[in-house]
Amino acid sequence: MKTDSAGLQVLTHEECLALLASVPVGRIVFTDRALPAVQPVNFVLDRGTVVIRTAAASRLASAVRNTVVAFEVDQFDARMRAGWSVTMVGHAHVVLDGHEIERLALLPLTPWVPEGKDQFIVLRPENIAGRRIAP
Amino acid sequence: MKTDSAGLQVLTHEECLALLASVPVGRIVFTDRALPAVQPVNFVLDRGTVVIRTAAASRLASAVRNTVVAFEVDQFDARMRAGWSVTMVGHAHVVLDGHEIERLALLPLTPWVPEGKDQFIVLRPENIAGRRIAP
Repeated sequence: MKTDSAGLQVLTHEECLALLASVPVGRIVFTDRALPAVQPVNFVLDRGTVVIRTAAASRLASAVRNTVVAFEVDQFDARMRAGWSVTMVGHAHVVLDGHEIERLALLPLTPWVPEGKDQFIVLRPENIAGRRIAP
Repeated sequence: MKTDSAGLQVLTHEECLALLASVPVGRIVFTDRALPAVQPVNFVLDRGTVVIRTAAASRLASAVRNTVVAFEVDQFDARMRAGWSVTMVGHAHVVLDGHEIERLALLPLTPWVPEGKDQFIVLRPENIAGRRIAP
């Protein structure tokens, strides 16, 4: 088992993907008008990509179009002082292809707030890393 | 009760601060070699600032020195499709003053991984905003 310089366990690529698939909400990290920004979103994994739904006019949709973003999921237990986090970095793009939109619409991805979230954004991980703090 | 364009409840400044104080772990969002980066950290609130501890040689310490970062906390219940998030944006700085370091060392802020986390970083919120999704 590998540990990093901070003493955290380094998760394997397979562990990262399994943990990423185990939670319904992650946080997308981007730049908004030159400032760091972060927004929680529900998502699903599809063919190795992270898929989210948003409104076409949202701050998120404008900010992440064709840019590099980070996406983070984690789970911590404060009492045990234990937990894990997985972060991927990659390009985000808005899905414009009609057939692909039809396919993505069949995924189990329902917006929690159903206000015209008709735009799919796909994040393709170019880098994925995870750490675990064991109790 | 105010809602935003996405249909989410807008939290007041007081609600944001109360929720920020209610959780032990948040996520610091910064730029690392021109890429968006995010790292979970345990923290405490002190005199209106977010205080974290890290190792002086850490990626985090190098990246957030005297720069603008975001800091996010949230709590979601996937079954209820409900939850909240609070994000602050502000300047981060490493505490160098000896008396201030002594004072911060008395805060209830123990590193979860005790590997030479002798550097305090303070985030002073210049902007704070929160949203809630009611079930």
